Amino acid sequence: MTQRDALEALVEALRRLPGVGVKSAQRMAYHLLQHDRPAAQALAAALTYAASVVRHCARCHTFTEGELCATCADPKRDARLLAVVETPADQAALERSGSYKGQYFVLMGRLSPLDGVGTADIGAERLLERAGDGVVEEVVLATGFTAEGELTAQALAAALKARGLKVTRLARGVPAGSDLEYVDLSTIAYAMHDRH
Amino acid sequence: MTQRDALEALVEALRRLPGVGVKSAQRMAYHLLQHDRPAAQALAAALTYAASVVRHCARCHTFTEGELCATCADPKRDARLLAVVETPADQAALERSGSYKGQYFVLMGRLSPLDGVGTADIGAERLLERAGDGVVEEVVLATGFTAEGELTAQALAAALKARGLKVTRLARGVPAGSDLEYVDLSTIAYAMHDRH
Repeated sequence: MTQRDALEALVEALRRLPGVGVKSAQRMAYHLLQHDRPAAQALAAALTYAASVVRHCARCHTFTEGELCATCADPKRDARLLAVVETPADQAALERSGSYKGQYFVLMGRLSPLDGVGTADIGAERLLERAGDGVVEEVVLATGFTAEGELTAQALAAALKARGLKVTRLARGVPAGSDLEYVDLSTIAYAMHDRH
Repeated sequence: MTQRDALEALVEALRRLPGVGVKSAQRMAYHLLQHDRPAAQALAAALTYAASVVRHCARCHTFTEGELCATCADPKRDARLLAVVETPADQAALERSGSYKGQYFVLMGRLSPLDGVGTADIGAERLLERAGDGVVEEVVLATGFTAEGELTAQALAAALKARGLKVTRLARGVPAGSDLEYVDLSTIAYAMHDRH
């Protein structure tokens, strides 16, 4: 390699991380090389290890190192409930809420027609198969309340209902602890519509 | 390792990058494992390689793989001029401007008393030695016009002048292409003060 190639190659590689532009990549590379080479080596090792051992859970599709993830393998979870979430981070948020004790299916994405992400990319077929195991009684659609999350929920709801499954959706409304004055208007409109 | 360890270790390692919090680190890890494992492997290789071969130029202190960087080794550069910059990125910006043909000294940082960064951390001693080689006639302080960049320039100017060296500073003023109405007030005040 020529004089600056190792540094330039590192900046290029860092730029492939989501949300990292050329300025951030340079700052990261300078920081690692100037102040924290152990962090560079730790990151290299973690990347290599994770890329080799992390795969998808055979039942819920989330990341795991074994055949089944810890949640799917846990006999204490209620197998009659199946929550559909977009990402492992969303699953973790639901777990932290302590409000759900069923099983999960992790889409690892969401429908996004503009980006060419279709039903095959979010494993819709595998979800239908998983939900139709004869044990699941209710599928809780817990995708986000963004435009793409809503689209995903609608598409999956239609397919699941066509199989005769009971489908529910997380409630939309005013966040806990919010003053109405600071809540956006469409949320208030939905909360009014869904009042009970 | 247990079930989620490889993924958690990767998120931890990504968090050590500057400007990356836990949410960004998760997003990066998910993206790499779900969509771009080749990028994960390329990044691991680039990190390992750069951490092992990149060192500091013996003359200007910037990153290099050889004894001297390309700029210091270039006999066509004017050895009578020495520009002091904070980072390789600042050096690259000066080079792109095409306005400077001398040599450089790269501080790889700037004075920051609040963060405990003192003159030893920016290689001030090595700069004084470098500038006192008998060939350098003018030291151009090209640190940033931030509070810390200014502090650095002032401290270095005092030390360099005490050695009898001619010291200059980049001009501060209204950016090229700017309407006055959009320029911040302190810049206008400086431009008025330094009018010529």
